[in-house]
Amino acid sequence: MSKLLEDAVGELSKLPGIGRRTAMRLALHLLRMEAADVGVMTGALDRFRNNIRYCSLCNNLSDEEICPVCADQTRDRNTVCVVEQVSDVLSIENTRQYRGLYHVLGGVISPMQGIGPSDLKIDLLLDNVRRGVIREVILAIGTTVEGETTQFYIARRLAEVEGIKVTTIARGIGFGDEIEYADELTIAHAIHNRTIVK
Amino acid sequence: MSKLLEDAVGELSKLPGIGRRTAMRLALHLLRMEAADVGVMTGALDRFRNNIRYCSLCNNLSDEEICPVCADQTRDRNTVCVVEQVSDVLSIENTRQYRGLYHVLGGVISPMQGIGPSDLKIDLLLDNVRRGVIREVILAIGTTVEGETTQFYIARRLAEVEGIKVTTIARGIGFGDEIEYADELTIAHAIHNRTIVK
Repeated sequence: MSKLLEDAVGELSKLPGIGRRTAMRLALHLLRMEAADVGVMTGALDRFRNNIRYCSLCNNLSDEEICPVCADQTRDRNTVCVVEQVSDVLSIENTRQYRGLYHVLGGVISPMQGIGPSDLKIDLLLDNVRRGVIREVILAIGTTVEGETTQFYIARRLAEVEGIKVTTIARGIGFGDEIEYADELTIAHAIHNRTIVK
Repeated sequence: MSKLLEDAVGELSKLPGIGRRTAMRLALHLLRMEAADVGVMTGALDRFRNNIRYCSLCNNLSDEEICPVCADQTRDRNTVCVVEQVSDVLSIENTRQYRGLYHVLGGVISPMQGIGPSDLKIDLLLDNVRRGVIREVILAIGTTVEGETTQFYIARRLAEVEGIKVTTIARGIGFGDEIEYADELTIAHAIHNRTIVK
């Protein structure tokens, strides 16, 4: 087998969710692309890996010292939404419903994986909150055991700070989901926290 | 959203079978890799795309003018196995059962996609066969309509050449497949071409 092909396939199959068969398919696809376009792609990946930074205020990915959200003076600086990871920011931004700031933890507390509170950007969040402009902290963290632990820990830390509201995003049956297939905890929670229609 | 991230995700999502969500997951994975390792990966892809060649004898991917299979003097030069694409060579090589040469067509005849016989390396195959060392041509092409058409066309062209045998790989029920789920044509073919056990 060609060494060049072997190297390309070997490297691609190091990516998560990409086995050797998929890696082979991707490598052969590169041959159908213009060489210049492959260069554009690999260049974008190298630039991303080498030049990306973390926003010094919210820990989101950023091209500059301060990310576009934190730098945007039209955003609501009284509200901060705490999320686990960068992709959560994008999911929420895509809704176009939220105009506050974000805070990216960079993970959740997981004793199994050796991730403690000090490995997450929780102190930075507390610093931001204590600076005194934030009035509400929305906790938008996943409902795994680790997520719940993290949420509990952050809520307790925030309890020390006077004059701020702490909320969590609503749990319930998702749009398009069938009640039949929802788990009991979710259904119980959805009934308990029902909203008034009329 | 960060421009660097947007560019990386945009480029990755141009690959087949990779949507924006998967592209995002892959891009974020790059941040967990060492920058040097990302460089090794992108370097391997660029080198592959820029330096790969097609073997001038069999049209397989190759680092040199002649591919390792054609260059290997221990292989059986009397037999050539005709396949649609490069990945088929690898599938057959992985069985370690075949010691002859290959011939990669680079596709199949498909009037729908505007691919005619002249777009495939059929003339090169005929040249190789006419050179006189080959005694058997094995047609190992898929059983799609296009594949069957291609096989029929090549068999007809090879009929002009004296003293060679032309075969196709056996069609039948695959190991691990249930007869129950096989289509009628395959079952009919498998019964018609049954092999003697005792």
